[in-house]
Amino acid sequence: MRVAVLGLGAVGKGLLRMLAAKPELGFVLTAAADSSSARIDPEGLDPAGILDTKCATGRCGVSGLTAADVIASGAFDVLVELTPTNALTGEPALTHIRSALNQGKHVVTSNKGPIAADYAGLAALAEDAGVALRYEATVGGAIPVIHAIRDGLAGNRFSSITGVLNGTCNYILTRMDDEGLTYEQALAEARELGYAEADPTYDVRGIDAAIKLVILANTCWNLGVTLDDVAITGIDGLTVDALRLAADQDCTIRLIGEVAPAENLLRVAPRVLPRNHPLVIEGTLNAVMLSTDMAGEVTLMGKGAGSVETASAIIGDLIAIRDRYAECE
Amino acid sequence: MRVAVLGLGAVGKGLLRMLAAKPELGFVLTAAADSSSARIDPEGLDPAGILDTKCATGRCGVSGLTAADVIASGAFDVLVELTPTNALTGEPALTHIRSALNQGKHVVTSNKGPIAADYAGLAALAEDAGVALRYEATVGGAIPVIHAIRDGLAGNRFSSITGVLNGTCNYILTRMDDEGLTYEQALAEARELGYAEADPTYDVRGIDAAIKLVILANTCWNLGVTLDDVAITGIDGLTVDALRLAADQDCTIRLIGEVAPAENLLRVAPRVLPRNHPLVIEGTLNAVMLSTDMAGEVTLMGKGAGSVETASAIIGDLIAIRDRYAECE
Repeated sequence: MRVAVLGLGAVGKGLLRMLAAKPELGFVLTAAADSSSARIDPEGLDPAGILDTKCATGRCGVSGLTAADVIASGAFDVLVELTPTNALTGEPALTHIRSALNQGKHVVTSNKGPIAADYAGLAALAEDAGVALRYEATVGGAIPVIHAIRDGLAGNRFSSITGVLNGTCNYILTRMDDEGLTYEQALAEARELGYAEADPTYDVRGIDAAIKLVILANTCWNLGVTLDDVAITGIDGLTVDALRLAADQDCTIRLIGEVAPAENLLRVAPRVLPRNHPLVIEGTLNAVMLSTDMAGEVTLMGKGAGSVETASAIIGDLIAIRDRYAECE
Repeated sequence: MRVAVLGLGAVGKGLLRMLAAKPELGFVLTAAADSSSARIDPEGLDPAGILDTKCATGRCGVSGLTAADVIASGAFDVLVELTPTNALTGEPALTHIRSALNQGKHVVTSNKGPIAADYAGLAALAEDAGVALRYEATVGGAIPVIHAIRDGLAGNRFSSITGVLNGTCNYILTRMDDEGLTYEQALAEARELGYAEADPTYDVRGIDAAIKLVILANTCWNLGVTLDDVAITGIDGLTVDALRLAADQDCTIRLIGEVAPAENLLRVAPRVLPRNHPLVIEGTLNAVMLSTDMAGEVTLMGKGAGSVETASAIIGDLIAIRDRYAECE
């Protein structure tokens, strides 16, 4: 299966490292693009060589060639879309994905923006073209939650999904609870450790968690909701006193995303939970609890971020596409 | 897809109830057998009607017809093998499964015995026949752990699997820890609630957990191990004092199955774990932690038993088979 990779930031580099380390997977890299160059070779490129070139020159290939040129070349079976993308508008990933689906190419992405902004439209494009659109990496990092909804728990009706969807917030809350730190202290620590960005607004105000919740809601029930439909409260107003009050009752506070269509519930907010609740997890971990009619409550937990963890999710999607489509050819 | 069901105990009845409740799944029941009768109709049977007959007469169909007759009829695409089976020898399920695979039929089973006794042989038969052998229901009840190993985390190399694989033991240990009950008191309570069998040997001595561990070890690494290779310590010798000592260090004790091929580790034993360890779960729940090279540690948790929960796993397998094979026809 021929793979084109758009975007060589942390995730793209992590993916190329894994493709180089696991030749047994049998994927052939035929194109790669970063923000200022691209390389296309239908015979196959060496992922390690691309990484070396990128590291030495800051570019992966021929300057002047772009992501759009890669797509237009058609020299791939699956487009892996990892370009730095606006999480609200979904661009430029949204345009790349539409364009690849319109050409009848499979798409795998780690970009939340396009999936949250136009899930229904992209799913319809993929369906019409008879190709796959997969995005396991957009929610919960390495945790195979979309696989669990679509495949592992297939046949179940889902009543709700509840989850810890943002590792930065979970780290801050864990540290406030464990060490009695203030929000500002815990945030400063998270920044130092690289768990929070210089501008943490997007994480601490619950927007990142809400975007992931929208993706889960549309995947599971095809609700057609967007970010505007989510009632969002972040953790930036949370006081040490609130955590102390919770602790007095053997509880703690976590930022929880919840969707339950029958109750019209689509919310991200800090919630008081008993300490032994499955969603009370530590540090930067993520967890998702799926409530179903047959399987009861199934919880998945693991690392919510990291370049190699994200590569794991992308590779799982690539293998799923190969297994589903290649066997029929 | 035409489905034949062998065995109408709790799991078989649960499955027929779900097939009756979810006609949208599109499975056609063409045969059913219990220990003293069977019914075969290539045009399709009504699952609710079969359940009614079974309830009213104690038999599902024509006495004299057997499971072997169902298999010989060939009037199905997938055999669902749920007969009461010896967990050590795997019979009679092992014979049924071999016979169906030899006929080129897909097989789904909830029976641990045959998978633990002859995984390599059955997998080879299925491969030669170009059909699927699926057994999600054998480990962790409703938790889609085999799906996670095979599909969701595909592309990863696994270094270890660690899990709480027996709900009866976990219930007993939870109650000993929470309420300071003795082993005998907690076991008596588990029996009253139906969480432990009249003869609990198989559960409390760790044999059930060890069989599931063998299945995971062979699924994940094709180790070719059997029950004899597992170092097993049960919970029946565990004292209140041991739990108190653990509690003094903010820890508790759980029965943990562990396999790590690089360390030659294949063991079921009570283990002291910090209270916030992901495998410290409550009551009859099960949990499995998969350690991988890319995704890090991914933990899945949920209900480890129950007829409808088991039906969920079986239906997930049926859908996986339909998706994989039907699309190519």
